[in-house]
Amino acid sequence: MANAMLLPVILSFLILPFSAMALTQDFCVADLPRGDTPAGYPCKAHVSADDFYYNGLALPGNTNNIFRATVTPASVSQFPGVNGLGISAARVDIAVGGVVPLHTHPAATELIFVTQGTIVAAFISSDSNTVYSKTLNKGDIMVFPQGLLHYQYNIGVTPAVLLVAFSGPNPGLQITVLALFANNIPSDVLPKLTFLDAAQIMKYKSMLNGTA
Amino acid sequence: MANAMLLPVILSFLILPFSAMALTQDFCVADLPRGDTPAGYPCKAHVSADDFYYNGLALPGNTNNIFRATVTPASVSQFPGVNGLGISAARVDIAVGGVVPLHTHPAATELIFVTQGTIVAAFISSDSNTVYSKTLNKGDIMVFPQGLLHYQYNIGVTPAVLLVAFSGPNPGLQITVLALFANNIPSDVLPKLTFLDAAQIMKYKSMLNGTA
Amino acid sequence: MANAMLLPVILSFLILPFSAMALTQDFCVADLPRGDTPAGYPCKAHVSADDFYYNGLALPGNTNNIFRATVTPASVSQFPGVNGLGISAARVDIAVGGVVPLHTHPAATELIFVTQGTIVAAFISSDSNTVYSKTLNKGDIMVFPQGLLHYQYNIGVTPAVLLVAFSGPNPGLQITVLALFANNIPSDVLPKLTFLDAAQIMKYKSMLNGTA
Amino acid sequence: MANAMLLPVILSFLILPFSAMALTQDFCVADLPRGDTPAGYPCKAHVSADDFYYNGLALPGNTNNIFRATVTPASVSQFPGVNGLGISAARVDIAVGGVVPLHTHPAATELIFVTQGTIVAAFISSDSNTVYSKTLNKGDIMVFPQGLLHYQYNIGVTPAVLLVAFSGPNPGLQITVLALFANNIPSDVLPKLTFLDAAQIMKYKSMLNGTA
Amino acid sequence: MANAMLLPVILSFLILPFSAMALTQDFCVADLPRGDTPAGYPCKAHVSADDFYYNGLALPGNTNNIFRATVTPASVSQFPGVNGLGISAARVDIAVGGVVPLHTHPAATELIFVTQGTIVAAFISSDSNTVYSKTLNKGDIMVFPQGLLHYQYNIGVTPAVLLVAFSGPNPGLQITVLALFANNIPSDVLPKLTFLDAAQIMKYKSMLNGTA
Amino acid sequence: MANAMLLPVILSFLILPFSAMALTQDFCVADLPRGDTPAGYPCKAHVSADDFYYNGLALPGNTNNIFRATVTPASVSQFPGVNGLGISAARVDIAVGGVVPLHTHPAATELIFVTQGTIVAAFISSDSNTVYSKTLNKGDIMVFPQGLLHYQYNIGVTPAVLLVAFSGPNPGLQITVLALFANNIPSDVLPKLTFLDAAQIMKYKSMLNGTA
Repeated sequence: MANAMLLPVILSFLILPFSAMALTQDFCVADLPRGDTPAGYPCKAHVSADDFYYNGLALPGNTNNIFRATVTPASVSQFPGVNGLGISAARVDIAVGGVVPLHTHPAATELIFVTQGTIVAAFISSDSNTVYSKTLNKGDIMVFPQGLLHYQYNIGVTPAVLLVAFSGPNPGLQITVLALFANNIPSDVLPKLTFLDAAQIMKYKSMLNGTA
Repeated sequence: MANAMLLPVILSFLILPFSAMALTQDFCVADLPRGDTPAGYPCKAHVSADDFYYNGLALPGNTNNIFRATVTPASVSQFPGVNGLGISAARVDIAVGGVVPLHTHPAATELIFVTQGTIVAAFISSDSNTVYSKTLNKGDIMVFPQGLLHYQYNIGVTPAVLLVAFSGPNPGLQITVLALFANNIPSDVLPKLTFLDAAQIMKYKSMLNGTA
Repeated sequence: MANAMLLPVILSFLILPFSAMALTQDFCVADLPRGDTPAGYPCKAHVSADDFYYNGLALPGNTNNIFRATVTPASVSQFPGVNGLGISAARVDIAVGGVVPLHTHPAATELIFVTQGTIVAAFISSDSNTVYSKTLNKGDIMVFPQGLLHYQYNIGVTPAVLLVAFSGPNPGLQITVLALFANNIPSDVLPKLTFLDAAQIMKYKSMLNGTA
Repeated sequence: MANAMLLPVILSFLILPFSAMALTQDFCVADLPRGDTPAGYPCKAHVSADDFYYNGLALPGNTNNIFRATVTPASVSQFPGVNGLGISAARVDIAVGGVVPLHTHPAATELIFVTQGTIVAAFISSDSNTVYSKTLNKGDIMVFPQGLLHYQYNIGVTPAVLLVAFSGPNPGLQITVLALFANNIPSDVLPKLTFLDAAQIMKYKSMLNGTA
Repeated sequence: MANAMLLPVILSFLILPFSAMALTQDFCVADLPRGDTPAGYPCKAHVSADDFYYNGLALPGNTNNIFRATVTPASVSQFPGVNGLGISAARVDIAVGGVVPLHTHPAATELIFVTQGTIVAAFISSDSNTVYSKTLNKGDIMVFPQGLLHYQYNIGVTPAVLLVAFSGPNPGLQITVLALFANNIPSDVLPKLTFLDAAQIMKYKSMLNGTA
Repeated sequence: MANAMLLPVILSFLILPFSAMALTQDFCVADLPRGDTPAGYPCKAHVSADDFYYNGLALPGNTNNIFRATVTPASVSQFPGVNGLGISAARVDIAVGGVVPLHTHPAATELIFVTQGTIVAAFISSDSNTVYSKTLNKGDIMVFPQGLLHYQYNIGVTPAVLLVAFSGPNPGLQITVLALFANNIPSDVLPKLTFLDAAQIMKYKSMLNGTA
């Protein structure tokens, strides 16, 4: 195959014909300050390996809250390298007795890897309100179809850790109890939407800081 | 342009070259008995104009229930012609004082046309729990982004009617209060998920027929 | 569940862990002045409930034209809230004797709700030129698969009104007779494309104002 | 790197861990007899290199027809290997003086390579009825956006040949003049849809064999 | 809110109007024996919570092979619940000194969570052959854009474990060295494709069992 | 149909009702300087027929390089009219004895038309490393599924020409041998990834100009 001495000379011919293809979009790291589009953020002009890497899920999140649980996201806002790639991540820490209460991700399916502890995880189908529930231990995985209500809670004696993958860069997180009470829905409307007693609603509102 | 007398003869040449393209998929009416795929149902072999037509939304639905409201769907199950076309429909009737309580459509954006009455309609964003609420009259339209919690209730003195379009053939409908209480989630788990008092939960369960 | 007095204090812990997910894209209201992308317009920075609401379809359109019909669109240009959501709307008014002549929507399937009057509606398949035609009355719905030629005309004794949903925010509207004659296609080319006599073409051109 | 004598033994370990991934869907050759779904045909169980190859475009099509042109498709029906791959092909032959008359492809963008002859090619935008027209010679390429009316005609002194790629496996082909007149649309309806004189319509109908 | 005694009676009205929406597709667990379609497998008729759960990634894979590494997939073939949901999983074990050699996933982006050990991971862009390489420790995540060549190798003193999420249910895995030499590409063709010396090729072929 | 004298007057009524639909996105010609998004480039404000036309594939590419072959792309960078349309093109010239060596397109399926010469073309499946190989002559077409390794080489006595269509506007091109050796992967890492001898690697590196 030719004389190796000549090859560096030939190289300009070698690389050139193919480099005309150079502006291809192998990836599109989010340029967050320019704002979003329906398909994701515009692409950053200059990228490095660090754009495809994130270490914000390495440490446990703070579970010192009502839920005794916390979600640490690695969505496109935190991890711009996933922009346009149809995937993102999160870490969930659930203290003993803690719960990730009823919630949905409007824009993604969720897949969890249990890496520590024992939990119950479940989702509810929209047609028949069937509950699909499993007890999960370290090493187990489970999938929660897009948009359906689901929850996880720790039933073990140690903290539980879940590594989470989403089928989109921007899954969203809508926690039912916060959606209802941590905002300004008028207190006289809430019974219509929820069939709750007035006393229960007042308790929620004061607990979750919505404006009455 | 040629002698019209000759044209019928020529016609076989005319039609033939293009009819080889004949098996194209202009549409794919659902063949429901064969079961679904992730992209929709297999296509029915023989179709007629009736497959693209539905009259099940012409009459008011029965609002004689707790919600004083009803949703009459024209999803792919009722209206097989929408299969694979990225759209479907429904009709919502809300009696005076009625409500379509807090719910989501996991698999579609909803767009409503108010054709009768006066309602309040709102959706709740997932990031900040902001409520986007409008009073709507006859002729108004509103859009509810995919997967987000939303609700509508009649604030007028006549029944309200909404014609609904969905951005998919199979939107789903997950009513929060039914998802929680019209099923078999254990009563001791529900407080974790909802922060509800035990008494309130018992009331729901008996009301909505879930197994305690 | 804990002492309600403590809860407001605890709240900062409650909200914080989840609000890090805050930049999620629940929706993307079009920022029209910044121009379009293949997936829709960039997202507006500040939105309100009004962005998801439109009242431009409430009143009848003006049918005082050749077709005795008019289409009032609620596409992304008029209704920026539908940007990126896979749906949009329109209203069609057809006076007695009026017609929405042969046309396509290049970028969306159409679903109509007949809310007044009696029409004939039809589409034509591309493979066999089969006409799928139905007479529709108030309350009927019909679907017209994406990109196929279709038409509607009033056969009743009152004006007809159609509420229209499209499977995309930007359906387009290509009316065959305008596409051919309301522009600058040379008159000697038109017979090739249409097999029309020269006299007929001249009549069209003067009628529809194309440049000869 | 180890002793080559041992390697065949080691091989079972080598291949095994990865072959569990074996049922991946690298492609999905259409199993045509099982019928279509919205995303394409089910996958054939056994495939060979011949499934990804087609020679039906090698020879000129027969242009002995009214249009003096013919389209030879390599859609999924003829070329099952393109199923699910978002692409297909065709060949267009246009004799001297011939034309591919006004038409659309409802389900694909078209890209043409002119490999012989000189043509005029144009498409018409849906918003302003603007005609985008070019004279094309051997080696030129042009793109026709999905769903828009377009046409090509030979202006040279030799037959023209176009190689065509479509952005989908099943583009469809709707020729306006055939859609209108090679079917059973009643003759009294056609003037509404087209603004044509009755005499012109009769001429078309007899020419194109529709039922009057 | 009404008399609770009446509510069970009322319930049939309550549930009925909404259950007509019952055939919605919240998910589509793969019915593997019926074979694939371009959008995934047909949906299983009867599902349970077990369909959304998988425990095949709990144990380390066998790294006793040439690569000293192994990939244990949880694609749709192993984990039918992910069908149609745009996500799947895998586990990678890399012994000390082991490597997942140069490979691609033709049909998915990959996101890894390092849960044990220290590795180097890198992908190569297609335009400029730039290598994006990072040293990763426990807790780090990295994303590898769809279709690009990438690799991981253990640089630590303990086995490394990666949990892997893919942006599709069927990512595929094409290991370059196996694609070239563990098959029947003629030995005289391989130098053309690879610029390898004949001796090197012979060594590969005997090592990897391709037919010469 | 009315008095032709009146028609120009009427015309303003005719055009107006439909022109409100004017901002539809029939196409989105790339405005390259504004940079890419995950769905393609923002749309150019003013377009002409020239935007949908490209003549850069008319002439043979220069095959005076190691491969004796060259790829001339008509991706969105060269041909902005294909932006957002799901298709693009290229031309491949292969001199006698030349080869397009092992490569992938990470973001598109490829379909080739052989317009001159005789080649062998093949792709390799990811599951079983099966080689799907065909000898192709003028007029033959073949499809290479997205992301899979493939190659073409001239076995004839004349130069070969391929016209290429891709199922996306930005297919990418990753040539394995360049990806490995025309960059800065450390020489001590390459044996891990490739199982190549050190001498072979050195030869590659000097030949292909990577930094050692």
